[in-house]
Amino acid sequence: MLLCDIGNTSYHFLDDERSFKESVGTFNPQNIQEKVYYISVNHAVNAEIANLVNWIDISSLINRERYYETMGIDRIAAVEAVENAIVVDAGSAVTVDAVKEGVYMGGFIYPGMKAMQKSYKDISPALDYSFNFELNLDKMPKNSQDAISYGYLKTLYTEVMLHNLPVILTGGDAKVFAKIFKEADVDERLVFKGMKKILQKADRC
Amino acid sequence: MLLCDIGNTSYHFLDDERSFKESVGTFNPQNIQEKVYYISVNHAVNAEIANLVNWIDISSLINRERYYETMGIDRIAAVEAVENAIVVDAGSAVTVDAVKEGVYMGGFIYPGMKAMQKSYKDISPALDYSFNFELNLDKMPKNSQDAISYGYLKTLYTEVMLHNLPVILTGGDAKVFAKIFKEADVDERLVFKGMKKILQKADRC
Repeated sequence: MLLCDIGNTSYHFLDDERSFKESVGTFNPQNIQEKVYYISVNHAVNAEIANLVNWIDISSLINRERYYETMGIDRIAAVEAVENAIVVDAGSAVTVDAVKEGVYMGGFIYPGMKAMQKSYKDISPALDYSFNFELNLDKMPKNSQDAISYGYLKTLYTEVMLHNLPVILTGGDAKVFAKIFKEADVDERLVFKGMKKILQKADRC
Repeated sequence: MLLCDIGNTSYHFLDDERSFKESVGTFNPQNIQEKVYYISVNHAVNAEIANLVNWIDISSLINRERYYETMGIDRIAAVEAVENAIVVDAGSAVTVDAVKEGVYMGGFIYPGMKAMQKSYKDISPALDYSFNFELNLDKMPKNSQDAISYGYLKTLYTEVMLHNLPVILTGGDAKVFAKIFKEADVDERLVFKGMKKILQKADRC
């Protein structure tokens, strides 16, 4: 079974156990002949694949009442994969969603690493540092690089841990964030797990 | 006694009890004849006033060993004003500094409101919201505006409150932030209080 999670910049496929990415700019979805079950946050791609009969949008199979209207379908798919966890999806944005005993509790959105670094730099060139992921979380910083790293990472960490739920990291920056969230499980295929669960519930596979 | 806190965009004066601002772009420091005790983070202005004998830089009166080398002098002045508090200075950046029983514990830097809003907007036009300062901090959000407001404000709030110190809000956005930090004292003249204390310690007034 071929699954695809379409973002703003890439098609992320899972072909049984092999996962791979194709660039939105260069990949032609018509090149795939087999059935593809997909979710997409990319409106341009949606228009392109709407008429391809082998591309099947699974978003209509989800009971969306649990969620809110403008919530991204990729966030929903990740949340569908878990029963009791706080999911931190670290990409261009960092989305944080809590599920307690199968009930979606809500979530929040935090800037991704690149956006936040730019934000500090735009305030002042004196704040143009990369983040220190080896940061000591138990001590208030006394240097500029740690002061911005703590501002970005420790505030997020403290809030996430407050919810007393197992933490699951996913998204492109999951492994980097794992240096801060030492207790977390990294699961880069969480969205695909959610997609499979949605298909199983709907008896589609 | 005339005090002045010079930032990147304005001269902030305190003349006994009256405080007022002048724009860096249009104000001519030579127009002031009386003695001005100042601190400044503005290198261009520093060069302009270095030869004016009535403008007295008080930064050399501070025992800077307590602090770190690249720490802004305005942050240091605010910290000098308190004995036991966490100071949240909300301006173009939000600086957070902790002082416990007279000892500086360190601090961190978080993006200011405008920078953070731009950061969300740059990630996606779908995240282009103003922040909701009426946000319910006890509930994970289920709509986009609250999801980014919580991401910006609740993470900061949780981290600040964790330190179990009285919270003092200062800076241009102090009153707006007070809607979230309901327990905090707002003191828009904290930097001036610190400057006075520095002068008193040095027997200069």
